[in-house]
Amino acid sequence: MSQQRIVSGMRPTGPLHIGNYFGALKNWVALQSAYECFFFVADWHSLTTEYADPSKLPQWTREMAADWLAAGLDPEKATLFIQSEVKEHSELHLLLSMLTPLGWLTRVPTYKELQAELTAKDLNMYGFLGYPLLQTADVALYKAQKVPVGEDQVSHLELCREVVRRFDSLYQKNVFPEPAPLLTPHARVPGLDHRKMSKSYNNAIYLSDTAEEVKKKIMPAVTDPARVRRDDPGNPDVCVIYDYHKLFSDSATVEMVNVECRRAGIGCVDCKKKLLEGMEKLLAPIRDKRTELMQHPKQLDEIFDAGAVKARKVAEQTMTEVRTIMGVK
Amino acid sequence: MSQQRIVSGMRPTGPLHIGNYFGALKNWVALQSAYECFFFVADWHSLTTEYADPSKLPQWTREMAADWLAAGLDPEKATLFIQSEVKEHSELHLLLSMLTPLGWLTRVPTYKELQAELTAKDLNMYGFLGYPLLQTADVALYKAQKVPVGEDQVSHLELCREVVRRFDSLYQKNVFPEPAPLLTPHARVPGLDHRKMSKSYNNAIYLSDTAEEVKKKIMPAVTDPARVRRDDPGNPDVCVIYDYHKLFSDSATVEMVNVECRRAGIGCVDCKKKLLEGMEKLLAPIRDKRTELMQHPKQLDEIFDAGAVKARKVAEQTMTEVRTIMGVK
Repeated sequence: MSQQRIVSGMRPTGPLHIGNYFGALKNWVALQSAYECFFFVADWHSLTTEYADPSKLPQWTREMAADWLAAGLDPEKATLFIQSEVKEHSELHLLLSMLTPLGWLTRVPTYKELQAELTAKDLNMYGFLGYPLLQTADVALYKAQKVPVGEDQVSHLELCREVVRRFDSLYQKNVFPEPAPLLTPHARVPGLDHRKMSKSYNNAIYLSDTAEEVKKKIMPAVTDPARVRRDDPGNPDVCVIYDYHKLFSDSATVEMVNVECRRAGIGCVDCKKKLLEGMEKLLAPIRDKRTELMQHPKQLDEIFDAGAVKARKVAEQTMTEVRTIMGVK
Repeated sequence: MSQQRIVSGMRPTGPLHIGNYFGALKNWVALQSAYECFFFVADWHSLTTEYADPSKLPQWTREMAADWLAAGLDPEKATLFIQSEVKEHSELHLLLSMLTPLGWLTRVPTYKELQAELTAKDLNMYGFLGYPLLQTADVALYKAQKVPVGEDQVSHLELCREVVRRFDSLYQKNVFPEPAPLLTPHARVPGLDHRKMSKSYNNAIYLSDTAEEVKKKIMPAVTDPARVRRDDPGNPDVCVIYDYHKLFSDSATVEMVNVECRRAGIGCVDCKKKLLEGMEKLLAPIRDKRTELMQHPKQLDEIFDAGAVKARKVAEQTMTEVRTIMGVK
């Protein structure tokens, strides 16, 4: 039996942090061996929020490409490409827009939520409203059977399922499978200040951070606020450093920290140093590969150009069907 | 000085009638010698209202192509193409959607009007709302300085001007000229029943009608309802046949009809026969050429494919600028 197909994208809005790594990228690296994967840098999607100043977008796109390869995505296994290099995404988006009720889009919960969240930006744009429909086109273009989703994307996938169902029922065809959510282990990675890790909160550790930069972020981080002195016993359950240990350290270290912190057997400084060892072990190879890739932007571009060629082949097959059904060229 | 550029499109929703001919097509034929013209069969636009059953769209598109050439549009003078063959229209539409406020679209008067008019169709679609933005992309893609507009299109052109102005001001560039309306003589052509000529009213005379069909439509047409008997004097001002004389007959005939009708010097039957002579003189060559073209669909396709190649060259230049400015590929 042939492999099931997966599509997923990531919006380039800045360098990737460890929250992105454990939240999605690490998962993608695992998926690329079990599924036929199409992963794309969703640069058009970035414009829904960054349209007013897209000057950094080319840099973000390139850095994301480097982050992906550095973290272990393999162009031999997965089809990796930049969304805007496969124009069929915009064509299918336009064609599907003809049959997508406006109310389906205005009712997507994230539409109002994101607008409320990002008040500094004027997001009352036609394209911002159509964002989930562009996602629908992204997925449908490759006839994906599965889509890895986080909680906040469930409503978007539901819209995607409704739209492709409507297409098939309107034209009495079986063009699109209804993509099912692929529930995958998504580690929640808090930021250094315990809030959600985010570029805009200035609480993130980036895959591009040097060892020195990581250290400078970790060492002053607030741990258990109740543990004032070295002799006070601590509570790892409220400590971001312990959260990170669970992501970066081996299980023996995690267990040791859990026990020793509670009886003041280890101090926060030593605990952090221990963490930095684990972080460096995971992050150093990624960082090194990333640096090397960024020094050869032409090669990086070529890898993603080749991915676009592969993606376009599949996309064109779908579009040929869709165009015929909808009576256009 | 190089010629100014004009862009205009026509939605294929059925064969063209004499209302389309005198309302737009005849005008385009005149414009192609004075301007650099891009005329496109707007098949994607047809989907905004015909999405539920686009089965006839390929035929309508081909017939429109034949109508255009038969009526005198010349691929050596104007760039003639099918919209869906130039994918850049959808790409620019997507990119402009990112910076187009939703309110600009919901406030376009025709949005509510058309919905109210076409109640038989469910037009509350995302694509229907975006229709004037797709028109904006159509025009901006070729950096048109002028757009021939009918009254009902003025609000769409205003939106187009606002969107391209916003683009240039947001990014501090001079990419797009603000297209100015080109007010041109638009003959009002009533339908056989005095209402607006329209496929849906079943009151139209088509460029594809045979001489026999035209006769069958003209002869029973209601003239001045007050002129019951041959001896009654008539009033040409309320007579659709007289309206048609003004479009099809030479000025001597028009004057004769105007005078003789009022004093019952000519009867409606003879008046109609006179009209048919004039109609046949104009319509026969169009009909013959149309028939010939429709018998060679491959040649017809080749002419429009070649037009798409020409259009794409210009479109790609614009897209290269737009992509760079918006930071995408």
